[in-house]
Amino acid sequence: MSAPSAKPISGKVVAQHNSRESCWIIVHGKVYDVTEFLDEHPGGSKIILKYAGKDATHEYEPIHPPNAIIDNLPREKHLGPIEEGTAEKIEVKITDEERARLQRVEARPPLAEILNLHDFEAIARLTMPEKAWAYYSSASDDEITNRENHAAFHRIWFRPRIMRDVTVVDTSTSILGHASSMPVYITATALGKLGHPDGELNLTRAAAKRGVIQMIPTLSSCSFDELVDAAQPGQVQFFQLYVNRDRAVTKRIMQQAERRGIKALFITVDAPQLGRREKDMRMTFDAADPHEIGKSGGDQVDRSRGAAKAITGFIDPGLKWADISWFKSITKMPLILKGVQTWEDALEAYDQNLAGIVLSNHGGRQLDFARSGIEVLVEVVEKFKEKRGITFPNDRFQLFVDGGARRATDVLKAIALGATAVGIGRPFLYAFSTYGVEGVDHALQILQDEFEMNLRLLGAQTIKDLVPNMVDASNIRSHLVTVPSDQLYDTNYEGMQPARLRELKAKIKL
Amino acid sequence: MSAPSAKPISGKVVAQHNSRESCWIIVHGKVYDVTEFLDEHPGGSKIILKYAGKDATHEYEPIHPPNAIIDNLPREKHLGPIEEGTAEKIEVKITDEERARLQRVEARPPLAEILNLHDFEAIARLTMPEKAWAYYSSASDDEITNRENHAAFHRIWFRPRIMRDVTVVDTSTSILGHASSMPVYITATALGKLGHPDGELNLTRAAAKRGVIQMIPTLSSCSFDELVDAAQPGQVQFFQLYVNRDRAVTKRIMQQAERRGIKALFITVDAPQLGRREKDMRMTFDAADPHEIGKSGGDQVDRSRGAAKAITGFIDPGLKWADISWFKSITKMPLILKGVQTWEDALEAYDQNLAGIVLSNHGGRQLDFARSGIEVLVEVVEKFKEKRGITFPNDRFQLFVDGGARRATDVLKAIALGATAVGIGRPFLYAFSTYGVEGVDHALQILQDEFEMNLRLLGAQTIKDLVPNMVDASNIRSHLVTVPSDQLYDTNYEGMQPARLRELKAKIKL
Amino acid sequence: MSAPSAKPISGKVVAQHNSRESCWIIVHGKVYDVTEFLDEHPGGSKIILKYAGKDATHEYEPIHPPNAIIDNLPREKHLGPIEEGTAEKIEVKITDEERARLQRVEARPPLAEILNLHDFEAIARLTMPEKAWAYYSSASDDEITNRENHAAFHRIWFRPRIMRDVTVVDTSTSILGHASSMPVYITATALGKLGHPDGELNLTRAAAKRGVIQMIPTLSSCSFDELVDAAQPGQVQFFQLYVNRDRAVTKRIMQQAERRGIKALFITVDAPQLGRREKDMRMTFDAADPHEIGKSGGDQVDRSRGAAKAITGFIDPGLKWADISWFKSITKMPLILKGVQTWEDALEAYDQNLAGIVLSNHGGRQLDFARSGIEVLVEVVEKFKEKRGITFPNDRFQLFVDGGARRATDVLKAIALGATAVGIGRPFLYAFSTYGVEGVDHALQILQDEFEMNLRLLGAQTIKDLVPNMVDASNIRSHLVTVPSDQLYDTNYEGMQPARLRELKAKIKL
Amino acid sequence: MSAPSAKPISGKVVAQHNSRESCWIIVHGKVYDVTEFLDEHPGGSKIILKYAGKDATHEYEPIHPPNAIIDNLPREKHLGPIEEGTAEKIEVKITDEERARLQRVEARPPLAEILNLHDFEAIARLTMPEKAWAYYSSASDDEITNRENHAAFHRIWFRPRIMRDVTVVDTSTSILGHASSMPVYITATALGKLGHPDGELNLTRAAAKRGVIQMIPTLSSCSFDELVDAAQPGQVQFFQLYVNRDRAVTKRIMQQAERRGIKALFITVDAPQLGRREKDMRMTFDAADPHEIGKSGGDQVDRSRGAAKAITGFIDPGLKWADISWFKSITKMPLILKGVQTWEDALEAYDQNLAGIVLSNHGGRQLDFARSGIEVLVEVVEKFKEKRGITFPNDRFQLFVDGGARRATDVLKAIALGATAVGIGRPFLYAFSTYGVEGVDHALQILQDEFEMNLRLLGAQTIKDLVPNMVDASNIRSHLVTVPSDQLYDTNYEGMQPARLRELKAKIKL
Repeated sequence: MSAPSAKPISGKVVAQHNSRESCWIIVHGKVYDVTEFLDEHPGGSKIILKYAGKDATHEYEPIHPPNAIIDNLPREKHLGPIEEGTAEKIEVKITDEERARLQRVEARPPLAEILNLHDFEAIARLTMPEKAWAYYSSASDDEITNRENHAAFHRIWFRPRIMRDVTVVDTSTSILGHASSMPVYITATALGKLGHPDGELNLTRAAAKRGVIQMIPTLSSCSFDELVDAAQPGQVQFFQLYVNRDRAVTKRIMQQAERRGIKALFITVDAPQLGRREKDMRMTFDAADPHEIGKSGGDQVDRSRGAAKAITGFIDPGLKWADISWFKSITKMPLILKGVQTWEDALEAYDQNLAGIVLSNHGGRQLDFARSGIEVLVEVVEKFKEKRGITFPNDRFQLFVDGGARRATDVLKAIALGATAVGIGRPFLYAFSTYGVEGVDHALQILQDEFEMNLRLLGAQTIKDLVPNMVDASNIRSHLVTVPSDQLYDTNYEGMQPARLRELKAKIKL
Repeated sequence: MSAPSAKPISGKVVAQHNSRESCWIIVHGKVYDVTEFLDEHPGGSKIILKYAGKDATHEYEPIHPPNAIIDNLPREKHLGPIEEGTAEKIEVKITDEERARLQRVEARPPLAEILNLHDFEAIARLTMPEKAWAYYSSASDDEITNRENHAAFHRIWFRPRIMRDVTVVDTSTSILGHASSMPVYITATALGKLGHPDGELNLTRAAAKRGVIQMIPTLSSCSFDELVDAAQPGQVQFFQLYVNRDRAVTKRIMQQAERRGIKALFITVDAPQLGRREKDMRMTFDAADPHEIGKSGGDQVDRSRGAAKAITGFIDPGLKWADISWFKSITKMPLILKGVQTWEDALEAYDQNLAGIVLSNHGGRQLDFARSGIEVLVEVVEKFKEKRGITFPNDRFQLFVDGGARRATDVLKAIALGATAVGIGRPFLYAFSTYGVEGVDHALQILQDEFEMNLRLLGAQTIKDLVPNMVDASNIRSHLVTVPSDQLYDTNYEGMQPARLRELKAKIKL
Repeated sequence: MSAPSAKPISGKVVAQHNSRESCWIIVHGKVYDVTEFLDEHPGGSKIILKYAGKDATHEYEPIHPPNAIIDNLPREKHLGPIEEGTAEKIEVKITDEERARLQRVEARPPLAEILNLHDFEAIARLTMPEKAWAYYSSASDDEITNRENHAAFHRIWFRPRIMRDVTVVDTSTSILGHASSMPVYITATALGKLGHPDGELNLTRAAAKRGVIQMIPTLSSCSFDELVDAAQPGQVQFFQLYVNRDRAVTKRIMQQAERRGIKALFITVDAPQLGRREKDMRMTFDAADPHEIGKSGGDQVDRSRGAAKAITGFIDPGLKWADISWFKSITKMPLILKGVQTWEDALEAYDQNLAGIVLSNHGGRQLDFARSGIEVLVEVVEKFKEKRGITFPNDRFQLFVDGGARRATDVLKAIALGATAVGIGRPFLYAFSTYGVEGVDHALQILQDEFEMNLRLLGAQTIKDLVPNMVDASNIRSHLVTVPSDQLYDTNYEGMQPARLRELKAKIKL
Repeated sequence: MSAPSAKPISGKVVAQHNSRESCWIIVHGKVYDVTEFLDEHPGGSKIILKYAGKDATHEYEPIHPPNAIIDNLPREKHLGPIEEGTAEKIEVKITDEERARLQRVEARPPLAEILNLHDFEAIARLTMPEKAWAYYSSASDDEITNRENHAAFHRIWFRPRIMRDVTVVDTSTSILGHASSMPVYITATALGKLGHPDGELNLTRAAAKRGVIQMIPTLSSCSFDELVDAAQPGQVQFFQLYVNRDRAVTKRIMQQAERRGIKALFITVDAPQLGRREKDMRMTFDAADPHEIGKSGGDQVDRSRGAAKAITGFIDPGLKWADISWFKSITKMPLILKGVQTWEDALEAYDQNLAGIVLSNHGGRQLDFARSGIEVLVEVVEKFKEKRGITFPNDRFQLFVDGGARRATDVLKAIALGATAVGIGRPFLYAFSTYGVEGVDHALQILQDEFEMNLRLLGAQTIKDLVPNMVDASNIRSHLVTVPSDQLYDTNYEGMQPARLRELKAKIKL
């Protein structure tokens, strides 16, 4: 940090440092000399140079954690506050495409016409800035796992029971000992301000209103304290932890979390390295100068990994089972591993007396062809029965699933199979990106309605009444690919045609 | 009911009560004060206000059971008859779209060109009013179960026998002891007048002619008595019952049904709450003022559930097995549960000495991802053999299936697997919506022809000759989802091309 | 027949009988009074009335067996020969569509560009008269079995062997004791003149040249004698028999066949009634006057069953196992049942000492959802091993398969699994419809080339070297249907995009 | 070869021999009399006659091995050198299509935008000459196996392990005792100069830089010596051998290979005859005069088999197991069979003490419906365990797989299942066809990056840490075909629609 006594610097002075040779920028009213940092910036030097000598706050804010620049830049490069009102004006040129997008934003349908979580995504796709959409929606490699996460739910079918009194149904449940109005929590996702100026605060506020639990991400756009401060009295929050290569940092974060009342710590274990999210990467090329990219050459291909790369370099790829005791030694918060993907690792977590696991593949953003959480759930439940004789749900060791859920039916399938709750992420991002906090609130209301209806239709009064024989998951392991099409045969086949209105008779297709 | 002696009210007087503050409407020649009912109307206040001070009969009729307004409005709001000829004229504006639709109605092909049940649907889709099409065709959530109902039949294949004398084949059978010309009955569907002014009467009349049984729905547009009155001497009718929260109402309905000669009572057990039929809901938004909808807010999302919501609030979600004895105590009609979806519940129904069950998911309109009736049939037959040693078809306890059947082959698969008959619903709605009673008659003739032909081709002289080893249902439980496509690979693959006419050589696709 | 001495009738006289009241037509130079036959004509009266008083030969010829009119019309309606050159001229109006089709015929690619059997079909589809295309290509109901016939081959994969000397390979084999240059025969198909003026003669001639066996159909356009006369010395022909309700007719046909040197009799057992071929039926409507069709009403729906209906009314639906001894009593030709579809019936045929069976579903033209012949083959071979301890191929009882084969690989799969040979039908129809006898010859050459290549690639020198473990047929019974698509999810998913040329960057899709 | 002392021939003289009667051509500065060779040319006479009397080098070079003309033409037809500068000028007419293609070549994106191996193919498809693209991309028959090769990988899913220290990962491995930077080698593919003037040299150079092994093909466009000469000191190269009918030729080639330091000999065993590559064949028709092709007639159909046919006539279809001892007798190089496709043949190779096998179907270019190498791998590993008790990877007998790999994940699946390495072919062809040696280098860099990332995400530090339970290959044998679609049902179904922007409401589709 620059010394508090530093004298304000004039915008005119800053404006002279506008080149690769000497590059100053303004962020949040402070001036920084980033000349030597240019080549280390994970997002590339070009984007910084665009703001050389100017105020970069607008560009910086949504894609950096609050303290990124302060933490990464040596103290002596913190030059001091900008003299108020003197910073060079940034002229924002609105492109035709951006103008069209803003018109689409205006044309959003009234919230009441949003009938399901899919609808938020449909509107988000049309109205979000392309870069934000690319970051939120992208996944790794060919995005097979990303889509499989949703598809896997479709291999599970219901066996609904009838003639049970479902006049009153209760969708509430308990997650790690804390009440939740439904068996769902808002899972951690990064960079909320890409979608909405209030970022993750939208989630905190709607979660309070609807009685669900929010998991605060390490990589939130809002600061951790902002998000905890925004909580209502008694509102439960969890924290998602990326373990830092510098364990002192991790220790500090954990202790702060515990001090501020976080009720459980979810340690991400599926991200020793960032997955390749090619949609996000292609977006970067569009924004950048192709010639500079061209020069970076094969050895430096990491230079252009999109928004996500900028923020994840600190994550420790050396995290291992032996570290568990260290975590336990410095916190009393329940520890849950997020990103477990085999029964073997699930069993290890159980045997190490952790509080639970999230069966997750990081929303399809890490290893492509990793299996869906819901599939792994079936395997885990089977093997725990066989190896340890225990069944689920189980208070001593709770199973969570995330990835791909869009309907209450998806969640109810996981619950029937043994999960305590299901984490939902992207749909809430799309909800606040399109309608702010009201969007998230409406999304939760939709889920609440769907839960009530589906409990009734399943013949269950409460979450506890959901039992394994209410679902048929016998196809869950079927990863099927159809034989490649016989294109000559298919081209020749003349399709069936229905009755047609007169004067509209079908003609032979040429 | 208004007192018979009430003095006729002039249309001019009614016309003054045309606002939210005082809202009178005319239905079937009677004036009603609905001011206080506006906010309770399941279809929303807007649609009523459109007719404030005017005659709403035309809008009211097709989507309300005959006595809806009489039963729901307190007696003192029944103001009396309208003075003949004085009601304010409604000017019906025909939109361009409606005009185009009416032209399409004129262009319907002659009935002889309708070759199968699919064809009625093809014409209905083009010629029905959009709202009616939306109500009939919609199903719950993502309509997965709706489509699965048909798809499941495609997982069952025939093992036809040869060299049997099939000169004479007989498609007739017996359903709950009553003769039917084929193993099919017309199942209950609501709101027939949405599709045709004669509503369910079209079904009654064609059923008489073709010797099949009609199941009268609780929610018919025509009154129960009208439909019974229209029956020919000896014509068999069943009745579908939604159990009312007020059991006195249910008792009255049941006793009336028995008195009028109904031969069997089908109690719907899969609808403790209405499924979300989003196609139907979206239609409502199109018709309504988005600003008012916007105002209704998250807590009142139920306000806009389309046509169906308006009519189902009375259904009792508290119906339970213990109620069976009550039903038995007040009627001698055979009792059948409609909407059974597991072998466990089927067995319970059997053990409670009911007359049969319909394996049904309500045409995909209730719980999405419920399995098809035909799939459940296989499970039920297997488990009854295992648990009770009985086989099907079985006169003491009959199995029915509905949902998704479009061809006689679909029905014959169910029969071979043990069903007594299959219920068909939507195809007959589309038949009368496009061609009235002649449409239904033609639809039944098509089925009759298909049954005869397919009995011959299967090597069966009668319905009884259809046995389990005439089908291969070994894939029935396969709910398969293919692995998400590899879009980059697929985009790159240059498809095979057939021989082409000269001068028409294929060029590389850009 | 009219008396040989009948005096020629003048065209002028004939021309006066041009109405429903008195309707004479000329066919092959003879005059017939068809007035009373109008309402019995399976193809409807309209098409006859179009030629009332005129020469109908051109229309009659391709869709009737040679003697249809002579056999069906009472002798007294055979009025005698037409006076030469006096028949009223038919003015043939060439429609724009027909003109366009003739241009397409001219644009056929040279035969050398036809690389596979698919290619004939591609050209046939573009160049055949629509009615002929409809008759040849159509199948029953939804044509599921028709397409399954081809698809089933795609569920069987090869296990090719290496390091075997395949310098010389021999594709020849023996079918019912007769030499064939490849394990393929030309199966029976009806109405060859619809596609080419020489009809089935094209097949006879090419079969002679290429050393394959032709199965002559009961319903050939050319007369049986023409086809036998056209055979080369030593050329082997089989005969396909539809059993007539009048067994005297059948006896006469069989004895004629035996006398003329037919080597085996294939009795069709899968067609007690004609399948519904809706494509063919729709074509009829296009050609006919919709008002007349409209009048025919529900009870007479059979009036409009397309080309095929006209010719199959004589087939006996009463054919049964007990009839086998009668067949044996009147012929020494080997008897084969064509259209067996279960192992049970296959075993019965074996136990009745027949010479073989064709596992066939009539090219998908009879019972829809019948399984493919190749699938039934696997079941039959398994069960014969289990029940009788015999293996295939087997000279005492030969198995044939037809339906869906387009490549030599299809055929080789059947051979490896135990079939003696595979029947191919439609591809040869398309071959002569597009290129006459040279087309059939080229088709057989293509197959010959494919057989040689694939024998080499499989590591087999001769047909006998094809053994079961050269194929993996473990998926043959999988009749899979994928779960209905999640359309909202799929619509929202933004597909992967490949690298693009500069200036061609992908834009967001609206 | 022509005598060194031969006197240069003037271009004017050559130009007079420009007809079918006397046809001379110039290749690489030498004049040849090819008059008598015209009808033997596998590529047809037409293409030669186009260059009669002229310099054909440009056309000849990319599709013939360097010495093709010298080896195939009798010595007396080698007329001597052309007199420098006198050869008739070829006027190269650039078609509009070629001009458009060259513009597309110019518009290639910078290499840094190529994110994966798919991207090279996407650009190659748009920028390569059509003939070259057809040769590289085509496969046999319906190209089912070609696509199955890739699809099969999609039936295998990962079981990634967590909490393992993956700070340092090592992608290197050992292939037949030689170091490789990753478990991948560049497999043999023919005719490199079709794609780039430097042909296979691009591969040699990039392989050196990236530390991977190149397999030199028998049918390289560059000469064997050129490719060995270009290797860096210590660079390992393998050689792929097509066994010649003339074993003396094969012996000479093998001894030259051993002498030049080739480290292993891969004998191709899946190509006793060339597969039918119809895409390649159709390209030939486009280029040729259809009338001449027409004349060639049925018996000579082999005349037009595209680029590949020209070069493979020498391959011995008589190669057999008994020949193995001969190979061993003349070389000490390890022998590997390339193209093994069953466990039975794999076991034979093992029992004959070979060094390994490549489970391959020749990139789908030989027997269609051959199974993928990755599928055969699973079978081989299972059966070796059962029959010989050995497991893989195994230094004494190494398993390789090629075909369809596009991502490091594909390769890692094979490694986890027991393969030593995976061969990649076409992607490198596309890489140098679009960006030359830098393209191949970039492709290898991408793979290297993907390997590192995926090792981390799998929880593996080294290649040896990849074990069978890291994958689920239980669906590998599922060759599934879906039931043919019900087109009438599908046409009638009105799809779900998402929320829409205002003014964009969906309308009924006609």
